Amino acid sequence: MVLSDTETGLLHLLTIWYFWYYTGIRNGNVSDWHRWGRHEHAGAARARRWRGDRLIAQAWGHVQQAVAAAARAAGLPEPPSPHECAIGLGLAGAHVKARCDEFLRQAPAYARIALDHDGCTALLGAHGGRPGVIVIAGTGSVGEALHADGRRESVSGWGFPVGDEGSGAWLGLSAMREAQRALDGRGKAGALAQAVWGLAGGTREALFAWCEHAGQHAYAKLAPLVFDAEPADSAAAELLQQAALELEAVALALDRDGRLPLAVLGSVGRRLQSRFSPAVRERCVEPAGDAVDGALHLIRQALAS
Amino acid sequence: MVLSDTETGLLHLLTIWYFWYYTGIRNGNVSDWHRWGRHEHAGAARARRWRGDRLIAQAWGHVQQAVAAAARAAGLPEPPSPHECAIGLGLAGAHVKARCDEFLRQAPAYARIALDHDGCTALLGAHGGRPGVIVIAGTGSVGEALHADGRRESVSGWGFPVGDEGSGAWLGLSAMREAQRALDGRGKAGALAQAVWGLAGGTREALFAWCEHAGQHAYAKLAPLVFDAEPADSAAAELLQQAALELEAVALALDRDGRLPLAVLGSVGRRLQSRFSPAVRERCVEPAGDAVDGALHLIRQALAS
Repeated sequence: MVLSDTETGLLHLLTIWYFWYYTGIRNGNVSDWHRWGRHEHAGAARARRWRGDRLIAQAWGHVQQAVAAAARAAGLPEPPSPHECAIGLGLAGAHVKARCDEFLRQAPAYARIALDHDGCTALLGAHGGRPGVIVIAGTGSVGEALHADGRRESVSGWGFPVGDEGSGAWLGLSAMREAQRALDGRGKAGALAQAVWGLAGGTREALFAWCEHAGQHAYAKLAPLVFDAEPADSAAAELLQQAALELEAVALALDRDGRLPLAVLGSVGRRLQSRFSPAVRERCVEPAGDAVDGALHLIRQALAS
Repeated sequence: MVLSDTETGLLHLLTIWYFWYYTGIRNGNVSDWHRWGRHEHAGAARARRWRGDRLIAQAWGHVQQAVAAAARAAGLPEPPSPHECAIGLGLAGAHVKARCDEFLRQAPAYARIALDHDGCTALLGAHGGRPGVIVIAGTGSVGEALHADGRRESVSGWGFPVGDEGSGAWLGLSAMREAQRALDGRGKAGALAQAVWGLAGGTREALFAWCEHAGQHAYAKLAPLVFDAEPADSAAAELLQQAALELEAVALALDRDGRLPLAVLGSVGRRLQSRFSPAVRERCVEPAGDAVDGALHLIRQALAS
C-alpha cells in the first residue's frame, strides 16, 4: 500500500489521539507519569488534499506539541526531548498494518512508542486492562473485546457510510432520509423531518446542496435531532430503538454467553444504553477509565515486556 | 454558489449526456434531425481534482466531439459549426440552477440549447412527451412524472450514499453490510456474503481496504451479486424485495391514483419490475423511447416555443 493513495484513511487517522508519556527514562524511573487527553485535528477538510507524508508529519507535530503541553502542565522547566519520553497512542485507522508501519517509520526518536487503534485504548481503559467488552457509539461505532485468554476481537466499526450501525452518523443518515421522504411525498412530515428541514433546508434544492457537501461529521450532527424528536415522532422513536438493537448485536457478537462486563461508551451509546434489553443491561458496568487510561496501559505493558 | 466549490457535483454532471442536434438552421429547415446517444466520461477519478471551469470546458469539448461524430454518421462532408446546430441536453445534476447557469454561460455559440436534468429527458423519451411516470434504477435511482396539467415532479434521486433507495449502489451497500456482519459474527455467512468476500476480500483488513476506496459506482458493481445469490440466500431475496418496495413507493408518491402510465427504466429497475405488487405492475408500460428521444423532444419544444 502506498500512503499517498490512502489520504482519506490518513485523514481519519488524525482525528483522535490519546496518549501518555513519562519522563525520567534516563534513570529508568517510570513513576513519573503524565496524563494527556484527547486531541482532535480541526483541519480535516483542508488535509484531504495533502500528500500522505505531510499528513503524517503534521500528526507527529501534534504529538510533540501535546507532549510539550503536558510537560508545562506537570511543571517541568522545559519540554522533554523525544528520547526522554515513552508514549502510548490510540489512533483511529490503526487497524491497517501498512499504515501503522509508515506512521512509525516517520516517528521522532521517542524512547518507546506503543501504538494501537483507538478502540483498543478505549477497551483497556474501560476495564482497567482486564477482560471485558466495550461498545462505543459516537460519530462512528465499534465494539471491542478482550477475552480471558488474551484474545482481542473487533465487531462493527466498518466506517462511514457503509457501516457503523447505531452511531451518530448512522442516525443522521436515517434522519436525513426521513426528511427527504417527507419532502418528496414518500413519507409523513413528522417532528424529525421538520427538525432536519430547519437545519438543512426545506426545499429540494437546499437538501441537495446540504447532502452534496455532507460527510460523516455533518450527518452525526443531525443525531441529536432524533433524540429531541422522540416524544413527538414515532419514526424517531423507532430509529433510536433500531440503533439500540444494532449496538446490542455488537455486544452479543463479542460475547454470546454474556460472561464479560460490558461498558457502553460515546455520547450516542450512553444515550441509547437505557433502551437495551434487560439481559444486556444487566451486563453493563460503568467504565473504569477512559481511552487515555487505556493508552497508559498500552505503554506500561510495552515497557514491562 | 461558486463552481470551484462544487467539483463533486460537476463531476456528476459529466457522467451522462444525451443529445440531439439538427443542421439546416440557416434556412429554417428542422426536418434534418440527427440522433446521438449516451456519452459517458471515463476520466471521472482524475477530474475530481480539476477546477470547475476546466471541468465545464471539458464537458463542452465532449459535446462538440459528439456533434462532429453525429455529422460524420449522417454523411455530412464536414462538421457543422455550433451556430448551425440546436442541441438538447439531459445532464445529471442539472436540477441545481446555479450549476446550469454557469454551464450555459460557458457554452459555445450554438443556435439553440435546451438543457434539463437527465431524469427529464428520460421521462420525455419514455412517454413520447405525453403525461406519464418513470422510475429509473441503475447506479442511482429516481422517479419523474409529467402530469396532465403540465406539472413536472421528482421523487427520490437524492444521491449516494444517503438516498437513491432501490438503486444498484443501494443494493451494493446492503450487500457489503451483509458481508461485514457475516465476517464479524453479527450475521450468517450466506451465499451473498460469500460472493462479496470473493470479490472484495474475506478478511477484516481486505474489506476495510475495499470500502475505503469504494464510491457509488463500486458499490453498484456489487448489485448483480444480490440477484445471483437470490435462489440460495433468503437475505438476498429480502433485499431485492425491499428494493422493489422502495421503487414502488416512488411510483406511488408520483401518482397516488394510478392514472398515469408507468415505465420502469434502468438495468436494476428492469430486473426488479417483476417483483412489484399486481396493482403497480398493471400500470406498467413499455417505454416508447429512451432519453435520447427525450432530448429530441426537449429541443423540438424549445424551437417550437
